[in-house]
Amino acid sequence: MASNITLYTEAELKQVVRLDRAMIDLMEKTFATLAQGTVLMPPILSMDIHDRNGEIDVKTAYVPGMDGFAVKISPGFFNNPALGLPSVNGLMVYFAAETGMVRAVFLDNGYLTDIRTAAAGGLAARHLAPAQVDTAGVFGTGVQARLQAQAAHLERQFRRLLIHGRTPENAARCADDLAAHFGDAVAVEIADDPRSMVAASQLVITTTPARGALIEPEWLHPGLHITAMGSDAEGKQELAPAVLAEADVYCCDRLSQVETLGELQHLHGLTLKAEAIELGDIVSSPSPRQDDAITIADLTGTGAQDTAIASHAFAALEDKDFGTSVVN
Amino acid sequence: MASNITLYTEAELKQVVRLDRAMIDLMEKTFATLAQGTVLMPPILSMDIHDRNGEIDVKTAYVPGMDGFAVKISPGFFNNPALGLPSVNGLMVYFAAETGMVRAVFLDNGYLTDIRTAAAGGLAARHLAPAQVDTAGVFGTGVQARLQAQAAHLERQFRRLLIHGRTPENAARCADDLAAHFGDAVAVEIADDPRSMVAASQLVITTTPARGALIEPEWLHPGLHITAMGSDAEGKQELAPAVLAEADVYCCDRLSQVETLGELQHLHGLTLKAEAIELGDIVSSPSPRQDDAITIADLTGTGAQDTAIASHAFAALEDKDFGTSVVN
Repeated sequence: MASNITLYTEAELKQVVRLDRAMIDLMEKTFATLAQGTVLMPPILSMDIHDRNGEIDVKTAYVPGMDGFAVKISPGFFNNPALGLPSVNGLMVYFAAETGMVRAVFLDNGYLTDIRTAAAGGLAARHLAPAQVDTAGVFGTGVQARLQAQAAHLERQFRRLLIHGRTPENAARCADDLAAHFGDAVAVEIADDPRSMVAASQLVITTTPARGALIEPEWLHPGLHITAMGSDAEGKQELAPAVLAEADVYCCDRLSQVETLGELQHLHGLTLKAEAIELGDIVSSPSPRQDDAITIADLTGTGAQDTAIASHAFAALEDKDFGTSVVN
Repeated sequence: MASNITLYTEAELKQVVRLDRAMIDLMEKTFATLAQGTVLMPPILSMDIHDRNGEIDVKTAYVPGMDGFAVKISPGFFNNPALGLPSVNGLMVYFAAETGMVRAVFLDNGYLTDIRTAAAGGLAARHLAPAQVDTAGVFGTGVQARLQAQAAHLERQFRRLLIHGRTPENAARCADDLAAHFGDAVAVEIADDPRSMVAASQLVITTTPARGALIEPEWLHPGLHITAMGSDAEGKQELAPAVLAEADVYCCDRLSQVETLGELQHLHGLTLKAEAIELGDIVSSPSPRQDDAITIADLTGTGAQDTAIASHAFAALEDKDFGTSVVN
């Protein structure tokens, strides 16, 4: 029996999938389902292609209650910029949950991943940041620096935003973009000194590919939330081990992932103040947040989020005249 | 920078990818490369969706020297026939080897897998079957029963073909189809008794989802090649353990796979007569075949074959006016 399969481009997806509070709500619902233990989420398939300076990751998850599930293929080829091509492209294939039939191919070049990743940061801010955030600080100057700042602002309307990056031009460009995005609502400034930036902030987000600590324990202060979303692979790190140990709340997206891919891989024999808790547990129960607490969210990214945003995109595209269909 | 991505349907792929000796040559070259140890082939990503009676497997491999690599997604949803849908669908995504950019999506519904699987069987026959095969016997009545018989005949022009299946109507339909395919060249008959079928055959192919022995050691005779291609998962089995142990040559596609997915998982403490050898070693060196030997090929399917047939398909499609392209 022939079936209909539709190919959607990045430009089309950008018209229907946006970073807003509804997207954070969707991630809240997704993490709550994840915490119930019924989501199927196999280990990531990963292939390093050393002789091309490339890698490819495949993630999937089946989330009960959703109409479909996604298989996401993310290549990263780091010689591409020299060829005038992006390092990262990739796509999601979307299958009907009941039949496993291919319904759509989302040629999103990582856009859906960017949005679901930022929305998880927004969700962490919703549940773990102090109620009042006047100043937020961001480490990093890439796509996630921009999107995480936007997601956090959906939940905490800070008036001042500090950006710290290693390369001044990149930091300036990121600050300009965010100033344009926020307009008068937020004063965006470059922060040369990361320690003062953390001291001035109630909400800090690390969005870098760092392989060593960006934040030291002596910088911490009461009433501080940190979302560390850069580390998603063995060897990556943004927080000193003692930062994890001294936090009042250590929260992560998926315990089994952060132990090998997230900040928790670097705990090095230290012990957490309180038991590690998953984001899904926090959204399903009274928040552990107190306004003078130090809280951490350690995010590595989950296949459940991919399936959630793909299901959302598919539903949002249904009544649009978008896409290129083939009958197969 | 925008890139061009083309979607090809099963019908289009069937016009350019065929089971012929050139396809067996391609698999020979692929297995030779695999034997050199330079192919990257990560473990299969697998997700069982129990509450839908479904599963999804993802395979990939990077084969040095090929222009691209495939990521294959194969769903199997076994409630589908009751809904009038096929159990198996699926697709391959084809990436440029140099840049990791998506080049094509092959909506093949498993067709490319069927062909590369049968061609590996043909390759086993080329190197391991007796030089003279008058009669071939096939266990099973599905797609692979048909294709494996055709592939074997490309290498050994048997005049008689016996088909053994559990369900008489299915066996009759399979025999009819093969009789139509071969015409006068081959007499196709139903074999009710598997033991006599093996006794009469110089080449036997098992193509079933069995979970117990179909062939017993006392049925073996000098001058017999068996290709067992049904077992590709834990618990599946087509040959009694002693069949493996008594064979003069035990050959497999990938040792690391057959130990858990193929016949070798059931060796149960018996020892092989000679060291297990991979198909890629056989094609790269003088054949161990002797006409009075008992030889076995245990095939589980490899990602390298997927990448090979996808690269072949992509090249074959380039000068055709096929496919639906989008600029992304």
